[in-house]
Amino acid sequence: MLTLEQRLAMYDREEIYPFHMPGHKRKTELLADAYHLDITEIDGFDNLHHASGILSDMQNEMAGLRGTKRTYFLINGSTSGILSAISAMLHPGEHLLMARNSHKAAYHAVQLRKLTVSYVYPVITKWDLQGAISAETVKEAFVRNEQEKKAPIQAVYLTSPTYDGVVSDIEAIAKIVHDYGKVLIVDEAHGAHFGFHEAFPQSAIQQGADVVIQSVHKTLPSFTQTALLHICSDRVDVKRVEEFLGIYQSSSPSYVLMAGMSRLAPFLTNEGALRFRMLSDQLQLFYEKAKCLKHLHVLQEEDFSSDECFQKDSSKILISTRRCNIDGKELYERLLKDYKLQLEMYSGEYAVALCSLMDTEDGFERLLQALLEIDDTLEWKETADSFVGSCYIPREYVCEIAKAAEAKKESVLLEKAVGAVSGEYVYLYPPGIPLLTPGERIDEAFVRSATELKQRGMQLEGMRDFTGEQIEIAACF
Amino acid sequence: MLTLEQRLAMYDREEIYPFHMPGHKRKTELLADAYHLDITEIDGFDNLHHASGILSDMQNEMAGLRGTKRTYFLINGSTSGILSAISAMLHPGEHLLMARNSHKAAYHAVQLRKLTVSYVYPVITKWDLQGAISAETVKEAFVRNEQEKKAPIQAVYLTSPTYDGVVSDIEAIAKIVHDYGKVLIVDEAHGAHFGFHEAFPQSAIQQGADVVIQSVHKTLPSFTQTALLHICSDRVDVKRVEEFLGIYQSSSPSYVLMAGMSRLAPFLTNEGALRFRMLSDQLQLFYEKAKCLKHLHVLQEEDFSSDECFQKDSSKILISTRRCNIDGKELYERLLKDYKLQLEMYSGEYAVALCSLMDTEDGFERLLQALLEIDDTLEWKETADSFVGSCYIPREYVCEIAKAAEAKKESVLLEKAVGAVSGEYVYLYPPGIPLLTPGERIDEAFVRSATELKQRGMQLEGMRDFTGEQIEIAACF
Repeated sequence: MLTLEQRLAMYDREEIYPFHMPGHKRKTELLADAYHLDITEIDGFDNLHHASGILSDMQNEMAGLRGTKRTYFLINGSTSGILSAISAMLHPGEHLLMARNSHKAAYHAVQLRKLTVSYVYPVITKWDLQGAISAETVKEAFVRNEQEKKAPIQAVYLTSPTYDGVVSDIEAIAKIVHDYGKVLIVDEAHGAHFGFHEAFPQSAIQQGADVVIQSVHKTLPSFTQTALLHICSDRVDVKRVEEFLGIYQSSSPSYVLMAGMSRLAPFLTNEGALRFRMLSDQLQLFYEKAKCLKHLHVLQEEDFSSDECFQKDSSKILISTRRCNIDGKELYERLLKDYKLQLEMYSGEYAVALCSLMDTEDGFERLLQALLEIDDTLEWKETADSFVGSCYIPREYVCEIAKAAEAKKESVLLEKAVGAVSGEYVYLYPPGIPLLTPGERIDEAFVRSATELKQRGMQLEGMRDFTGEQIEIAACF
Repeated sequence: MLTLEQRLAMYDREEIYPFHMPGHKRKTELLADAYHLDITEIDGFDNLHHASGILSDMQNEMAGLRGTKRTYFLINGSTSGILSAISAMLHPGEHLLMARNSHKAAYHAVQLRKLTVSYVYPVITKWDLQGAISAETVKEAFVRNEQEKKAPIQAVYLTSPTYDGVVSDIEAIAKIVHDYGKVLIVDEAHGAHFGFHEAFPQSAIQQGADVVIQSVHKTLPSFTQTALLHICSDRVDVKRVEEFLGIYQSSSPSYVLMAGMSRLAPFLTNEGALRFRMLSDQLQLFYEKAKCLKHLHVLQEEDFSSDECFQKDSSKILISTRRCNIDGKELYERLLKDYKLQLEMYSGEYAVALCSLMDTEDGFERLLQALLEIDDTLEWKETADSFVGSCYIPREYVCEIAKAAEAKKESVLLEKAVGAVSGEYVYLYPPGIPLLTPGERIDEAFVRSATELKQRGMQLEGMRDFTGEQIEIAACF
């Protein structure tokens, strides 16, 4: 049996072009001898959990570059940053206003800390994508919260950009949140490259967010599992954040992962300006030439209204199949099998190519050429529906996530579960947004959605029964 | 400013011999091109969070090798395994019996899950080390718990071996725990090499433990931050463990870390027997020759009574300075500065050399020679006290860890804190065992211990005020 290492080495030799994370695209200068850099907290090499030497210098350097008050290197991904930020900013049982389209780590933090939640929902765009969260929606949530005399919102948590590169108006949202005297946490996992160049959106760091989490591994040249947590204002209890970072991350952090992160500030300082311009130029050219496509459609800035999308990150190339006779999955597979181009993901009627500073002119040309060739084989077929987006409707809230997640469970056939309270999460993956959380009522609409999604070959996750036929319900309701 | 990567590369070139973790000792076959192996969950490369392909094969292979029911690869260290095991095996608010000398992750799990705890304490050995936990102590805890009509113990959690390589009688303890119908979780972080060769202790896996966590990075040739969680019986809700593994670990696990772990089963299968024999022979020779030392004392098996230590892992070489005129710190520093031998740690009157399958004959000879030379420069000086061990006395339990940890805090001078309830942990580091936890009463003895330890140059950790002058108390008591 080949080991994973051997399989990975073989894969690398196949020379499939990566339009997916991690952002180094296997193109950075080699990290020779990873084992030779892999040590422990011996003298002179500091300790990530109370950095005062070289790791402190590294973090300060990045904080200076990003303009934050404090920056922490994370070795358990944005997951650990999200868990820590939410755990630190709210006491157990307090109330969080969060965007429904949030990473599961946010839901897990709510569950672990027994928080109550209200949701804000993004607009579903005309191209059936999760769009922006509007400032008005956030304001309405605060107003409604007061009117309904619910527990006061203590903090607001949003994801911007989305997996597809849709950015919300963080500046306007932050103003509202701060007017109410609360804090704003932004999951900017997909936006670690923001704020360096005018062709790309500003970072939430400069837009008033109090805590920002970025996955440097997604769009910058850094190892998978590396991320940053930024503290951007004085509204944050720094020591409390540090306490939780020490809980959710290994007490033996990897010096290999940290060594990879130590390249970032020099890289951005020395090569950043040039590489951002090159990426921007390549993308501009790509988007221009992609207008030739007759059946496939590469979403352009003008495909989004200002309500749907405050800003669009052009480094996420979204290729829609809504006007042709194949779906996202088939496009993704043809690009891989026939053109050796590995995209980041597909979902329903589109596929996503994730681009970074390490992409090459050749990569973009290959992608364009492949799309043109595939396009020539296709026929026009209009898909009018916005099925996927329509699955994300608000569910009836029966009890807190933690209560249902910890309750005694019963496993029942999905069709027979209508009226019951869910004991588990059900996600559509990608992008990993829950259709249903523990504590929500399973309704007919959910059962219909789940069935239809499965029939369309889409992956439901989170359920104990991975076939999706049985669902865990909270037996006490 | 040199980057961390550059500093690590320079350090490696200094050729200081490593008697510390990680267990690969920078001697394994190179992992060329770490960036070239670093991908994401694309087709054919499975998903650690619901493994069904190559990662499932890897885990099954290790489970077969270790004789477990299920084995999971961890990429956020034993920390994530400990958090997951405790979170999965007890419901919020339930009661855990745990060894006081446990890794902070166990305390964090208690805090996060609002568990109540009772402690069992290890014997303090005549050489002032944390010794074994006896089966009688565990039995007494169950009996006392019933007599005092406290909440029933739901699970038992122990650390074996200790940081110093002291093993408890897991088989006897497991019998007691199972007689009471409960489960036993063993932190075997320092024992990933157990159970393969007769010269080393058996693993808790074969001794009746229900869940066992091992840090493969400590004593096997694996990257820092890699670990295993083993499920060894049918008493464990596997899906619940998996749920928490998915909470406490990044949703983007590192393929570099996993690639390193993929070498372990082949390594152990192909080279294990030979390397274990070689290590065993080298250690035997070392311990024999070390008997010549006149002032320094390398602890031998006979230095532990059967009460103090059920079995001693010989791969942790403990060098005591109790009979000479230097302390552990000075020994550690002289070995580093004068002999380029980096030990794992020092504490009070001893230092520890951590050995693994990757150590060489040359390394052992250098260590022995260095000790002999240093020994010649020393004078006899008997230290009668067992000061460090004496600091670990039971504290008065006022409230649950979670309650005090979440309470409003006040920062007061340590000397003025007598009578108050602690709002934070105070650890001696190494080895990271708490002298005080949130919810415990600060007494005169604690203040005296803390002051004395600091005067002896030992590191107190966990306190917001890292100078140790101020302590956070729970203001509501």
